[in-house]
Amino acid sequence: MGDNSFGTLFSFTSFGESHGPGIGCIVDGVPPRVPMSEAILQPYLDRRKPGQSRFVTQRREEDQVEILSGVFEGMTTGTPVAMLIRNKDQRSKDYSEIARQFRPGHADFTYQQKYGIRDYRGGGRSSARETAVRVAAGAVADRVLKAALGENYQIRGGVVQIGPHGIDRDRLDWNETGNNPFFCPDPVAAGEWETYLDGVRKAGSSAGAVLEIVADGVPAGLGQPIYGKLDSDLAAAMMTINAVKGVEIGGGFALSALDGREAGDEMRAGDNGPEFTSNNNGGVLGGISTGQQLVVRVAIKPTSSILTPRRSVDMDGADVEVVTKGRHDPCVGIRGVPVAEAMMAVTVLDALMRHRAQCSLFDG
Amino acid sequence: MGDNSFGTLFSFTSFGESHGPGIGCIVDGVPPRVPMSEAILQPYLDRRKPGQSRFVTQRREEDQVEILSGVFEGMTTGTPVAMLIRNKDQRSKDYSEIARQFRPGHADFTYQQKYGIRDYRGGGRSSARETAVRVAAGAVADRVLKAALGENYQIRGGVVQIGPHGIDRDRLDWNETGNNPFFCPDPVAAGEWETYLDGVRKAGSSAGAVLEIVADGVPAGLGQPIYGKLDSDLAAAMMTINAVKGVEIGGGFALSALDGREAGDEMRAGDNGPEFTSNNNGGVLGGISTGQQLVVRVAIKPTSSILTPRRSVDMDGADVEVVTKGRHDPCVGIRGVPVAEAMMAVTVLDALMRHRAQCSLFDG
Amino acid sequence: MGDNSFGTLFSFTSFGESHGPGIGCIVDGVPPRVPMSEAILQPYLDRRKPGQSRFVTQRREEDQVEILSGVFEGMTTGTPVAMLIRNKDQRSKDYSEIARQFRPGHADFTYQQKYGIRDYRGGGRSSARETAVRVAAGAVADRVLKAALGENYQIRGGVVQIGPHGIDRDRLDWNETGNNPFFCPDPVAAGEWETYLDGVRKAGSSAGAVLEIVADGVPAGLGQPIYGKLDSDLAAAMMTINAVKGVEIGGGFALSALDGREAGDEMRAGDNGPEFTSNNNGGVLGGISTGQQLVVRVAIKPTSSILTPRRSVDMDGADVEVVTKGRHDPCVGIRGVPVAEAMMAVTVLDALMRHRAQCSLFDG
Amino acid sequence: MGDNSFGTLFSFTSFGESHGPGIGCIVDGVPPRVPMSEAILQPYLDRRKPGQSRFVTQRREEDQVEILSGVFEGMTTGTPVAMLIRNKDQRSKDYSEIARQFRPGHADFTYQQKYGIRDYRGGGRSSARETAVRVAAGAVADRVLKAALGENYQIRGGVVQIGPHGIDRDRLDWNETGNNPFFCPDPVAAGEWETYLDGVRKAGSSAGAVLEIVADGVPAGLGQPIYGKLDSDLAAAMMTINAVKGVEIGGGFALSALDGREAGDEMRAGDNGPEFTSNNNGGVLGGISTGQQLVVRVAIKPTSSILTPRRSVDMDGADVEVVTKGRHDPCVGIRGVPVAEAMMAVTVLDALMRHRAQCSLFDG
Repeated sequence: MGDNSFGTLFSFTSFGESHGPGIGCIVDGVPPRVPMSEAILQPYLDRRKPGQSRFVTQRREEDQVEILSGVFEGMTTGTPVAMLIRNKDQRSKDYSEIARQFRPGHADFTYQQKYGIRDYRGGGRSSARETAVRVAAGAVADRVLKAALGENYQIRGGVVQIGPHGIDRDRLDWNETGNNPFFCPDPVAAGEWETYLDGVRKAGSSAGAVLEIVADGVPAGLGQPIYGKLDSDLAAAMMTINAVKGVEIGGGFALSALDGREAGDEMRAGDNGPEFTSNNNGGVLGGISTGQQLVVRVAIKPTSSILTPRRSVDMDGADVEVVTKGRHDPCVGIRGVPVAEAMMAVTVLDALMRHRAQCSLFDG
Repeated sequence: MGDNSFGTLFSFTSFGESHGPGIGCIVDGVPPRVPMSEAILQPYLDRRKPGQSRFVTQRREEDQVEILSGVFEGMTTGTPVAMLIRNKDQRSKDYSEIARQFRPGHADFTYQQKYGIRDYRGGGRSSARETAVRVAAGAVADRVLKAALGENYQIRGGVVQIGPHGIDRDRLDWNETGNNPFFCPDPVAAGEWETYLDGVRKAGSSAGAVLEIVADGVPAGLGQPIYGKLDSDLAAAMMTINAVKGVEIGGGFALSALDGREAGDEMRAGDNGPEFTSNNNGGVLGGISTGQQLVVRVAIKPTSSILTPRRSVDMDGADVEVVTKGRHDPCVGIRGVPVAEAMMAVTVLDALMRHRAQCSLFDG
Repeated sequence: MGDNSFGTLFSFTSFGESHGPGIGCIVDGVPPRVPMSEAILQPYLDRRKPGQSRFVTQRREEDQVEILSGVFEGMTTGTPVAMLIRNKDQRSKDYSEIARQFRPGHADFTYQQKYGIRDYRGGGRSSARETAVRVAAGAVADRVLKAALGENYQIRGGVVQIGPHGIDRDRLDWNETGNNPFFCPDPVAAGEWETYLDGVRKAGSSAGAVLEIVADGVPAGLGQPIYGKLDSDLAAAMMTINAVKGVEIGGGFALSALDGREAGDEMRAGDNGPEFTSNNNGGVLGGISTGQQLVVRVAIKPTSSILTPRRSVDMDGADVEVVTKGRHDPCVGIRGVPVAEAMMAVTVLDALMRHRAQCSLFDG
Repeated sequence: MGDNSFGTLFSFTSFGESHGPGIGCIVDGVPPRVPMSEAILQPYLDRRKPGQSRFVTQRREEDQVEILSGVFEGMTTGTPVAMLIRNKDQRSKDYSEIARQFRPGHADFTYQQKYGIRDYRGGGRSSARETAVRVAAGAVADRVLKAALGENYQIRGGVVQIGPHGIDRDRLDWNETGNNPFFCPDPVAAGEWETYLDGVRKAGSSAGAVLEIVADGVPAGLGQPIYGKLDSDLAAAMMTINAVKGVEIGGGFALSALDGREAGDEMRAGDNGPEFTSNNNGGVLGGISTGQQLVVRVAIKPTSSILTPRRSVDMDGADVEVVTKGRHDPCVGIRGVPVAEAMMAVTVLDALMRHRAQCSLFDG
């Protein structure tokens, strides 16, 4: 699998730089006869689109997606779905400074070390701009999953912590994420975060965040042991997102501090088969879905591009001070929500197809 | 890639059940002309071997590895290295009870849901016994890495938290991990943990843990953006280990609570090129190694097999109480250390080979 | 996918050298709940076993296969099926000569060039002995296909040409292949070949061959365009077999000489849907199965190991004369038949699983 | 690896339908710092461009390639190179007839069987139009190979047979392929073919062909046994090209008729190391390159689209007669030459990178 591809049976391959002609992807393995169009996909992209509040980058990109293949008369045909988003707002600013300096916390240094060359404009390939195409691919996956799993299936996500400020779990309501600029499922916390993030922004700094993404309606049995475990694939998926530094499933790190009587999920006979009395395992046991809600949390570091001067070196190895002006997200975690949702959709669909390939051969 | 394979260029494919004839793996992509023998590999396996203290399972397995191929006159030949470990201590106990019950927190339920059949003896394929072959594959990787990267290269790991009890970072000394039954790098903490874990064990329960694995001497430039990032591959690797529920790189979840001035790693000109003033990013920026120490932490849930009765259901969906007698690790995290080290070795070598394939084509 | 693995969803990874401890493979992606045992697999291996006539190698190998995993109480469980065949008849002959010489037509030279080291005993990894494990993997595939496709499914093969001597198509009867030492579907030709091959053998030489493998009962729709075409996968499969130098599907090279009116396969309405009036395309159109018989032909070069002295060089680059004594097949094509059948079974099952993964998501 | 991807380390993923908005591909694994631009790539595409003689389709496509990513300031950066070719000459003809009929010899029937839906316009995804993007990907590979292997490296190809008419090997001159409309390396044969092909065309029919592709300057050691053999990968590559029904390496099928004394390639000490006295094996032994010229031949069936009425069925299964008007190549083999060259370039570069990843770890 190429380095710029994600997924095995349902997969996408991504391309594009922040300030090149455009970004896009090819989605392969798309099941045929699923309704698809630009109009269906665009709302997914609009959720991630920059410039929607003062808490995200002010770069102006409409992120209009063009479907180049794989859809005929409003339906997928089973051939690859290529999608293209032209870059619009590549500012013709003078890059001479950044061209020779390594912005701290960014991939400038490592790309240069790896390739001996880099497209330094706006971070080039390492820019979070690439994540727009994941949302497009995830949108395709989401539509296929809805067709396959029905109305119970749903992936939702939000920010559950910004800087040191979390949410109140008693107030958690996923329907609230559309009502505030943070995709926050707790409306009260969202109000408090505005103040906090304004302060951070004015101080020329940025904030970290924790995201939580949940999937309902995922049947039991998905995930391929041993090295294609559902939680392993989810962890890999999340860790490919820019600025992610940690992933946990269900109780995650908190489980480490518990003893075995507290941490386990017990089962009881229910009206529609076995039921779990808790979900510390986040819907995965032995790498296979239990049929419960899938729960993934993602740690996102503070945006590295800040107005506060930072010490670094240049291409000659000489000391420099770097102030990253540009148009940056004070908290990249916010726009990470639709990206993480998309990665979960792709991962779940891929797991579903892999499962059925092996285990449904004698059905139907 | 098959579901039971890990890695791309340097890869291994694993097989075997807890109570079947044996377990083993085929390691593919092994560079030729590296000294290799059973005598070289055995010490790696011995570190993970059961029965070495009262804090791990008392199952008696010598875990003697037999090399079946790929080594000729004490050297790798470039052809696949197959390794076999025969199971010895499969107790001929009566499995009739466990055969029809789902042990809570185990994969019994999900394997049955997925495959409609399962080898229930000792957890079958989902048993942590499988991890022995990872240690064998990791040992091969480690020897190749030493040959390729030299003496500065080293992977070390240990338990840094058991239950709620962490270590004192000021006392952290990786050389201490061989001096206590916990692979603990803090000798004082290790002493305290004995008391804690004895208590948990006597209460018929078990404990969670946090592992930390570090790699030194890894050159800058490893990791393949976007979907083959080094941290993504490390996260996937760790999440395939039994009972792991979380992974973090460098500062991990703690970074989410910081602001951008605290979280960033600055750089300064050093005697041998650029130097970082801190390592919050755990040695990875943009998915590519920085040349600093790689730092990964892994959350492990408490062992699910405990003597305390747990509520569950049986194959007919009826309520049952399950007491898992058997010979179990009171804290599976302990023996997870050599496994996590092995997974890191395989991941780093794979990244090195992928990097060189693309970026060293015009060298040498 | 590792270099020693074949297949994508249904795959196997092979290991072993001609004179090492043993050979074997791990079959991954095996659908669960298919009856499986050593007794079921052994007859497949027996067809390829050496020493069954004077026209094949006299090496004594029972090729007893041991199942190490993935089968429980006589059924596949969905976990990987590992199989081991211990080598028995590794003659303790003096290899000092062959160790330093490159046998012409063999892989001795290229392995040395590639790896800088080689296990020279009996050709090491490049020996056709490796093909025994393909037969084992193919046997697993064949049993799964029978379970999935029913009684109409059947893969058969034979030798249709030895040296310059072909068969009479009017006498072709696949049931005859078990009645002569050549897997020849034409009993008259088989008789003539005995004379020819005895002559070649006595002259200290060897003979080439053409194999034909056909599959019936393969449904329409298998094969994944564009780069996972069924015929492309079949060609790759056949070309991995030792000594194969050509592959054709259906009419193959003969079609190149025809014009478009002769070469096409027309269709007519039939009692059970559309029927083809001919099968020049060998059951594949656009890389997808048509539902007709799959037809593959394979060109096999004469065995390179012959008693006639051949000119070559040694490790120092000095001229030498090589006479390959050993125990060799005068026509390797013969024992290639069960191998080619096995590769077709694996390829067809893999295509079936890939097809269903993508196109049967909304069924059943 | 997705179904529309080819290659492992150096790979490309293709998209697009004959009459959709455009076709293109993403090339992944591109080594950095190789000069690249549209001006460099366009000449490769121009060789395959339609409408250049009366012996190929008259469709008007400029096949202007746009590089969307992966190139910065005239150099590859190591990030994926996406390329887009907009379709221009999609005739707005009435497709109502073809929409409901299966053109014999085409993939109409099998796509419908597989996917239950198809983009019938001009064959949709199964059109040979897709092969333009292979040429673009192959051009990238070719430039990288030139940079890596130097001036001795060269891939050349041509048509060596059209219908029943071959070439005279004594007149073979690869420099002649640019001087006639057939890429024929024998100028005398090329003259004869004009007459033959005019006749076929006027008769409302089409002709088959045999292509030969050779690579010089490929070092010994490329190819990954056992299932990543160079010849196996080449066979797979060629078999993915539309209308290909056979592949042979070196002597190919002709070797089957020889005995072992005739078929083998002997070696002698030469001035620059061992030399082969012949090349029956086409530059590959045991799946690994010998350092000799790589020789592949490809059988191409006659174009299925002909003016002569053919019997077929429609979507209702009723008998119909099909006359394929459109603008078709009377011999698709001709424009197959640059495509086959491109597939060889991609295959060889991929093999080179895989080889170096495993076997050059300790160099440089």
